[in-house]
Amino acid sequence: MARNSRQSEKLIKDFEKEKSIEEYARQIAPLPASEIKKLPQEKYNTEASEEGYLARLAFLNKRGLETDKIAGKGEFHQAKAYQGNIENFIGMAQVPIGLAGPINIRGTKAIGDFYVPLASSEGALVASYNRGMKACRQSGGITTVCLSEGVQRCPLFKFRSIGEVGLFVKWTQAQQPLFEKIVAETSRYAKLQEMAPTIEGNTVILTFEYTTGEAAGQNMVTICTDQICQYMMKESPVKPQEWCIESNFSGDKKATAVSFGNVRGKKVSAEIRIPKEICENTLKSSPQLIANYWQSSTLAAIQSGSIGAQGHVANGLTALFLACGQDVACISESSIGLTRMQLTESGDLYVAVTLPSLIVGTVGGGTGLPTQKECLNMLGCTGPGSARKFAEICCAVALSGEISIAAAMSANHFTQAHQNLGRKA
Amino acid sequence: MARNSRQSEKLIKDFEKEKSIEEYARQIAPLPASEIKKLPQEKYNTEASEEGYLARLAFLNKRGLETDKIAGKGEFHQAKAYQGNIENFIGMAQVPIGLAGPINIRGTKAIGDFYVPLASSEGALVASYNRGMKACRQSGGITTVCLSEGVQRCPLFKFRSIGEVGLFVKWTQAQQPLFEKIVAETSRYAKLQEMAPTIEGNTVILTFEYTTGEAAGQNMVTICTDQICQYMMKESPVKPQEWCIESNFSGDKKATAVSFGNVRGKKVSAEIRIPKEICENTLKSSPQLIANYWQSSTLAAIQSGSIGAQGHVANGLTALFLACGQDVACISESSIGLTRMQLTESGDLYVAVTLPSLIVGTVGGGTGLPTQKECLNMLGCTGPGSARKFAEICCAVALSGEISIAAAMSANHFTQAHQNLGRKA
Amino acid sequence: MARNSRQSEKLIKDFEKEKSIEEYARQIAPLPASEIKKLPQEKYNTEASEEGYLARLAFLNKRGLETDKIAGKGEFHQAKAYQGNIENFIGMAQVPIGLAGPINIRGTKAIGDFYVPLASSEGALVASYNRGMKACRQSGGITTVCLSEGVQRCPLFKFRSIGEVGLFVKWTQAQQPLFEKIVAETSRYAKLQEMAPTIEGNTVILTFEYTTGEAAGQNMVTICTDQICQYMMKESPVKPQEWCIESNFSGDKKATAVSFGNVRGKKVSAEIRIPKEICENTLKSSPQLIANYWQSSTLAAIQSGSIGAQGHVANGLTALFLACGQDVACISESSIGLTRMQLTESGDLYVAVTLPSLIVGTVGGGTGLPTQKECLNMLGCTGPGSARKFAEICCAVALSGEISIAAAMSANHFTQAHQNLGRKA
Amino acid sequence: MARNSRQSEKLIKDFEKEKSIEEYARQIAPLPASEIKKLPQEKYNTEASEEGYLARLAFLNKRGLETDKIAGKGEFHQAKAYQGNIENFIGMAQVPIGLAGPINIRGTKAIGDFYVPLASSEGALVASYNRGMKACRQSGGITTVCLSEGVQRCPLFKFRSIGEVGLFVKWTQAQQPLFEKIVAETSRYAKLQEMAPTIEGNTVILTFEYTTGEAAGQNMVTICTDQICQYMMKESPVKPQEWCIESNFSGDKKATAVSFGNVRGKKVSAEIRIPKEICENTLKSSPQLIANYWQSSTLAAIQSGSIGAQGHVANGLTALFLACGQDVACISESSIGLTRMQLTESGDLYVAVTLPSLIVGTVGGGTGLPTQKECLNMLGCTGPGSARKFAEICCAVALSGEISIAAAMSANHFTQAHQNLGRKA
Repeated sequence: MARNSRQSEKLIKDFEKEKSIEEYARQIAPLPASEIKKLPQEKYNTEASEEGYLARLAFLNKRGLETDKIAGKGEFHQAKAYQGNIENFIGMAQVPIGLAGPINIRGTKAIGDFYVPLASSEGALVASYNRGMKACRQSGGITTVCLSEGVQRCPLFKFRSIGEVGLFVKWTQAQQPLFEKIVAETSRYAKLQEMAPTIEGNTVILTFEYTTGEAAGQNMVTICTDQICQYMMKESPVKPQEWCIESNFSGDKKATAVSFGNVRGKKVSAEIRIPKEICENTLKSSPQLIANYWQSSTLAAIQSGSIGAQGHVANGLTALFLACGQDVACISESSIGLTRMQLTESGDLYVAVTLPSLIVGTVGGGTGLPTQKECLNMLGCTGPGSARKFAEICCAVALSGEISIAAAMSANHFTQAHQNLGRKA
Repeated sequence: MARNSRQSEKLIKDFEKEKSIEEYARQIAPLPASEIKKLPQEKYNTEASEEGYLARLAFLNKRGLETDKIAGKGEFHQAKAYQGNIENFIGMAQVPIGLAGPINIRGTKAIGDFYVPLASSEGALVASYNRGMKACRQSGGITTVCLSEGVQRCPLFKFRSIGEVGLFVKWTQAQQPLFEKIVAETSRYAKLQEMAPTIEGNTVILTFEYTTGEAAGQNMVTICTDQICQYMMKESPVKPQEWCIESNFSGDKKATAVSFGNVRGKKVSAEIRIPKEICENTLKSSPQLIANYWQSSTLAAIQSGSIGAQGHVANGLTALFLACGQDVACISESSIGLTRMQLTESGDLYVAVTLPSLIVGTVGGGTGLPTQKECLNMLGCTGPGSARKFAEICCAVALSGEISIAAAMSANHFTQAHQNLGRKA
Repeated sequence: MARNSRQSEKLIKDFEKEKSIEEYARQIAPLPASEIKKLPQEKYNTEASEEGYLARLAFLNKRGLETDKIAGKGEFHQAKAYQGNIENFIGMAQVPIGLAGPINIRGTKAIGDFYVPLASSEGALVASYNRGMKACRQSGGITTVCLSEGVQRCPLFKFRSIGEVGLFVKWTQAQQPLFEKIVAETSRYAKLQEMAPTIEGNTVILTFEYTTGEAAGQNMVTICTDQICQYMMKESPVKPQEWCIESNFSGDKKATAVSFGNVRGKKVSAEIRIPKEICENTLKSSPQLIANYWQSSTLAAIQSGSIGAQGHVANGLTALFLACGQDVACISESSIGLTRMQLTESGDLYVAVTLPSLIVGTVGGGTGLPTQKECLNMLGCTGPGSARKFAEICCAVALSGEISIAAAMSANHFTQAHQNLGRKA
Repeated sequence: MARNSRQSEKLIKDFEKEKSIEEYARQIAPLPASEIKKLPQEKYNTEASEEGYLARLAFLNKRGLETDKIAGKGEFHQAKAYQGNIENFIGMAQVPIGLAGPINIRGTKAIGDFYVPLASSEGALVASYNRGMKACRQSGGITTVCLSEGVQRCPLFKFRSIGEVGLFVKWTQAQQPLFEKIVAETSRYAKLQEMAPTIEGNTVILTFEYTTGEAAGQNMVTICTDQICQYMMKESPVKPQEWCIESNFSGDKKATAVSFGNVRGKKVSAEIRIPKEICENTLKSSPQLIANYWQSSTLAAIQSGSIGAQGHVANGLTALFLACGQDVACISESSIGLTRMQLTESGDLYVAVTLPSLIVGTVGGGTGLPTQKECLNMLGCTGPGSARKFAEICCAVALSGEISIAAAMSANHFTQAHQNLGRKA
């Protein structure tokens, strides 16, 4: 019998553990115009002065958000505290954080208003994302769904001939329950989801795909897969001549074209409909100008041999990753995306951003470091479900930035914004 | 008459301003074994303890390198100081820095031993790069050359028909001396190198390629190109229906396949020959095992639809970018690379890393921030030629990491290293 | 519970319907050297003269193979006979066919010696493939396995919001048994294997993957999927605003990067080990020279932004497709491949070719046309299993050509061969 | 001084040898509606019957076009006649040809109405392209321009170190006048246009780019480059350890991502504006439906990892290549394209097709074979300038097919057309 794809099944089953798809559909349905008007539009001081800075800290503190670490209070430079994060410790790199938002999100895990910490040294970046968030808030918020998840480790095995590969693959298939047991004994969080062989002559890559709880999970899947490999090397009736724990097929720390058909980390999609008047009043452009620009921009991306086609997803993601203790090197794969902007029948602007390979987590890696923890807390990203929540926020932030740059480009304000806010040529 | 390509001409002419190619060839020629033995192998304390940390700072200070800012001395949180780098400032993200090296480099600008600051929260990263640097040092140092440079801004113009595009392109060609004059009047550093049209139906993208002195230069080329566009919009005998300052063809903040045939930022190549005994003693593997692994790894990368084929260039580059005030979002394009490892006739290992789209600078952006400045100073990357020097260091650092991961993978030590140094599964 | 990937399961189950993997492994195991010597090496006249031509026809006829149609006997130009293949018929394009081989194959379906008809107008092509086949024959034959199969049709559905997409995907999942029934009622040959959603904002692409018996199957899957779509449009509780039968996601008639991770048509891998002396005596090169050349060639392919990395697979495949009535436009996707050549420990040459998206069939399309039928008959490709058999032959032929060009390139005979056999510059 | 890119300069200079760009712009300007109505719309019998067939032949003959060979008259099977095209000749593959058109073209070389022979065995193909041609004719014809041309051969040289590469590149640059002389002495048609080095560690690929007169030119550039290489190997002051005539960087017989930024063979763009009523009456869809479909189709192509984004360019090109004696294996690279369809302000449909790597010629290869010659003559593609003319026809034919499939897909007629005209499921 034919079967539904794994992605499809997971999409449905995973979601329905908590609510029915119908309930989710209601939860994330676009807000009617009458409701949008009622959204609170809290404001904080945005001046560059010392007073502005202190006012923003006070604003955050009043909302129960801690800022002592990012404000430089307390002692950070305790070498031992960073063990597991760094070797040969000599100090701390310091990168300024700007506040953007609130961004209003209608997601499956991320719901409501979020104040977003963005760490960057590129002038105009925070201002640009902030403007996009404002337009989205005025439009009723960004809908976003974490569609699927999975982290891979892809060992490779080389045999004497393709015939031996066949014998090996058959054997591994029969061992799968055992492999799951090995994983369960090795990690509390990792769950083996699938094992898929990719054969090329006398080699086979086995893609082991896991869910990893709230962790990004790259170390976790390495350790689990290594345990499986140790077992295989001992027990397999047919022994490889060479093997390695990662064949370089997983897309770890690099942009690969397979992202869209599969998932790496989290696959998230976000969308919004921006009314014509907001395009004009807040974004100083128009749905038609933006849609035209975006179509040209997509075709230029294709001609440049880009993977996916988006504007500057890397900018916002990098700033958010850096503030929130993510593995910033994963920007290589996480910034792959597809952004669509088009005119609706009613003359508004529809925007969607899809990120198929977002490597994020809310435990492990740099997430426990002092300033990083504060920033994750600002987004309420702790506890069960927080990795999906953070992924949805990432995609919504990316969408805000795409809107903002598209508006600036389409109305030819881009250069001026950078001249006003950035450093000089 | 046929002509040499721009890349070829620049390669030769740029270099020969300072020395003849023959002199450079001597400067970067591999060191004879007898000389390698004489290389000083200074060592610093590598313990994770507070004492180790202080000893490392003292070691750096003794060499005249300042560490007050990264060590958290002084007051960073002066909101106004970060204007031009951030808006809505609320504090500083803090990321631990580890010391790696010295890395010994035989480049055209980067020459000698360098102590490398790497900011990261991923355990084992610094240790792994450090091990690679050690093996390279013992092998006589890494040869590296910044082959070419150029930053692009790619406005798009849309006309009524392809015939109008032809008229426009012809007109722009005649204006080129004027465009250069506009650039000279707009920026002290930017120099227009080339203008190239890419026609698609009734649109044309004009690629303006610049050198930008010691700056990464993305804002600079935006401002200069905008001035040219303003002139074109006023004076062109045929007016476009739409235009924008960046078509999304330049590869800004994204991985694109055109990198290898051209350049974006800096194109750098680095190479080394690692003797068999160093592969065995320092890297705990062998030239044969490493070369075998690398070939498998390259083919797996191809099957994953990767752009280029490398191991984990993004790891080292991100850590170095972060420490040294680079635009970390540019990791998207900067981490594209091609790494080659092969057995030599004499049974040693040859390794080359080529990075075609390294976006780096030593002035502007985040390079003037307190900790970032200290880190750039550790590498001696200030003043004329320092951007090329920094690019050569980047490529050499990337090579160190490629060697180290290849050795670990090929000898199956990768998992254990991560288990010992990283956080737990 | 985790599960084996579809590809893995199919690999094993499909195969084991006929024999166990163990039996297959024996069937395709490399021949021992002693057995290789006993392989018959039948020869036919290879002169370019009229006599040579007649002798070759006689040679084929003696083996029971018909050649009347390709020899121009009988009347072809009966307009009505070509209905279903062409509209506005005005005559026949004629392309010369050359005979190559025998190629010796140790496949799962293709077993033994095959005389291969190649239609081409490019001088040296047949000679080059023929030389490769000779070297492979002398080395004990080419092992090849059709690893998996599946043809896709990918309709797209666009809704008002991503929430509606979720409702639709959930509904389609429940309908899958019905979809299979629809397929069974629509076609005798098509079998629905899988349905996979790819969500992007308010759109979803549903990939319907089928097996299609001995047909290439593109029309078949269109018709079946259209029936499913008609049903969905009538019955779905949530109706799309737009839909189309093919979203352009299937990779039909184009090179796409997703080929390696999945399958399109047939995925086939072939391998051989060529002893040093055959590399030298027959191929006039050496394992070391060939392996070195191939590594350089693979890295150059990567730098050119190629999908996969191979030499000239398109040459042999196009000639075979043309002779045997395949849809030659599918060369776009079918010629994607990965070719590996490496030195073995014993100093011989290992070669593998993997083609992940080979669109072939032995019924339907042009396979029933007069000359095409004769050519398929020469290869014994009729009846059940013949599409897989033909796919294995395709891959083995491709491998022969890769070997031959690699030998010529590595030993610098390429230009001379083309000067002797091709038309003049 | 900055300079115009080679492509830009060639675009202008090459064109202006014959006419000024202004004159060309007038020649290819869209026809006013009043003129479109006056275009003759000659019709031929399109019945599938024997009578229809004979009527079509008579129609062509009346226009002075020969059809004896495609109609099967005369003796083809003279083995010796095919020397240089095939080895081990055993007969002729026969593929039915259908007549499409007339296609009305407003190009720089292709001007007027053309009756297009398409060889294919895929039912509905000719009918579909024919329908597209009709819509384009009714819209005033297709504008098309061959933008640039160049065929590459890319030898690779491997040295002991990157320093030696630098010495070699410097030396080759000084030899360029000599290389041109070698080319002039080797071929009457080939002209060396550019030599560009691509350095990777201790290797360098030299891209030699030529124009090749009316020939596709792949053999020609091999022979010329080989002569240059022979000279280099003898005279270079620094000798490579390995070299080969083609590194696999040229994109020969494969889809590569670098196509759009450069050219391979011919780069051609075609455009048309199709009025709303013709979209409705002839194409049975609407500009809005087609533009919507096309945007979805482009985004699906991006998600599939396609190079470029187009519909089914390979179909028409393969049929035209096959009929006209082109190297059909080059469909791999020739079918790469970018197709744009969008709504105009006035509610019509704008369509553009750009093919950056069209490998075509009107002499050499299969162009002199009997039926192929007749087909090239039908298009008037003989003599000086005919290769560019043929390239413009190719692009216009591709555009016709893109329009037709987009109309069918957008209005959901695709399946039915294939059911009526194709073979059964």
